[in-house]
Amino acid sequence: MKLLTFNQNGTPCVGLREDSGIRDLSPLADQLGTTLKTMLECETLGRIHDQDLSQLPLIDPDTISYLPPIPNPDKILCIGINYARHIEETGMPKPRRPMVFTRFPDTQVGHGEALVRPAASNKYDFEGELAVVIGRSARNVPADQALDYIAGYSCYNDGSVRDWQMHTSQFTPGKNFPRSGSFGPWMVTPDEIPDPSQLHLMTRVNGETLQDTLTSDLIFDIPALIEYISTFTPLSPGDVIVTGTPGGAGAFRDPKVWLQPGDRVEVEIEGVGLLSNEVVAED
Amino acid sequence: MKLLTFNQNGTPCVGLREDSGIRDLSPLADQLGTTLKTMLECETLGRIHDQDLSQLPLIDPDTISYLPPIPNPDKILCIGINYARHIEETGMPKPRRPMVFTRFPDTQVGHGEALVRPAASNKYDFEGELAVVIGRSARNVPADQALDYIAGYSCYNDGSVRDWQMHTSQFTPGKNFPRSGSFGPWMVTPDEIPDPSQLHLMTRVNGETLQDTLTSDLIFDIPALIEYISTFTPLSPGDVIVTGTPGGAGAFRDPKVWLQPGDRVEVEIEGVGLLSNEVVAED
Repeated sequence: MKLLTFNQNGTPCVGLREDSGIRDLSPLADQLGTTLKTMLECETLGRIHDQDLSQLPLIDPDTISYLPPIPNPDKILCIGINYARHIEETGMPKPRRPMVFTRFPDTQVGHGEALVRPAASNKYDFEGELAVVIGRSARNVPADQALDYIAGYSCYNDGSVRDWQMHTSQFTPGKNFPRSGSFGPWMVTPDEIPDPSQLHLMTRVNGETLQDTLTSDLIFDIPALIEYISTFTPLSPGDVIVTGTPGGAGAFRDPKVWLQPGDRVEVEIEGVGLLSNEVVAED
Repeated sequence: MKLLTFNQNGTPCVGLREDSGIRDLSPLADQLGTTLKTMLECETLGRIHDQDLSQLPLIDPDTISYLPPIPNPDKILCIGINYARHIEETGMPKPRRPMVFTRFPDTQVGHGEALVRPAASNKYDFEGELAVVIGRSARNVPADQALDYIAGYSCYNDGSVRDWQMHTSQFTPGKNFPRSGSFGPWMVTPDEIPDPSQLHLMTRVNGETLQDTLTSDLIFDIPALIEYISTFTPLSPGDVIVTGTPGGAGAFRDPKVWLQPGDRVEVEIEGVGLLSNEVVAED
């Protein structure tokens, strides 16, 4: 299943992507839950196909206002320098453990929403990444059980304001400007992704492919990340792990590529989806 | 006013510290709000003394189960190496900008609650700090207006698991073990703190003073922190800025001092309060 959150007259609603359009699940909110996070908490995803979905509104995908699949995760944990080529281009030493930093939920927009280049910087950059959504409470999870805790996969643009990221050793400022990252268009359940370590990930800016990798090149793979992270912090349904970006982000190119208002950034992951956002200048 | 959050039969309630005890404000929740964060959002603190408080239950402070003054802030932003002596002892270069990292709310306990030394490490350390609670929405706030955005001050123990903090350049893992930090006992409103840059801060472990500073030694003072942080992220009522620790934390002593189960850590700030917690081993 491809499950998404969309804005319907100001209310976030859950939709199911079908071949023919997007099935609005909000009439089933009493049975399933009103948000995707609630559906995960209440473990109702498995009941979606018990319903007669043909009675639900079917919406044209081109008319939908997407929100992030999980608009308000309790925890968003991002991984730095987790692909070999990206480590080489940053000049940083290869980390012995996953490098973990955080984003606040207000840094995220959904598919099709505008990404905001802040007024405070002209060094706004893209990072295409595979995101993992946690499906159930997870603490001290061994790597060999970690895939059982995953509710789904999504595309993520871990947008970065590079000068603010590098003000000190801590990345927080450059990773937390509002609406600087994007997430979506939907969450794909694991039954459709038999092997998350063999996905083709590409990032395009204005149609030009600037990042291109297989997720098999991740240094710390998804089970290793869940094991490490769940040792220091409890994970909950709806939490998001953003697994790291491959080589080719704008700051590490020669010449450097900084995103400009009007640019379109696309993160496409085979079998997961295509996340597309235009960049606008901050008002 | 000294405002606190306490646990009453499983429900967080707001209390007002008076000389004679703690006045339970929960009977006024309809007028004031049910939580301190709500009271800040709805700007009801100024109305507390319009009420006839003498009719409210007065509770013996020794019988109260404290929670963090704000149990669930949207954002907790902590500042690294913000006192000159602490910079010297860490061997890090003096930062040109505030060094900002984050904690999740589940890392916090209240006054008197147990701090948990995780099973994953024996390098658990204290950091006594002055915390600032934000009172109203703040974005792009100039330093000379920043004090207007402060709802109050509190004591904070930014407890750190040092080996996990230093696994990579990013501090996140070592600062986010559950129940590894403490916050309280209450929030003191600014009318009682005429100059937050002239406060005496001490941290004691088992009665021995191991940190002792004036907040005048902060490199980036509170207005500078609010200006910097509010440039990259919007602040909301109840958000917490933890302003940094002075010299003398356990990892930087010779010999090093690691917290052990049974140890008692006290963070005392003149005019603000005394935050005291015992350390326990993780179950």
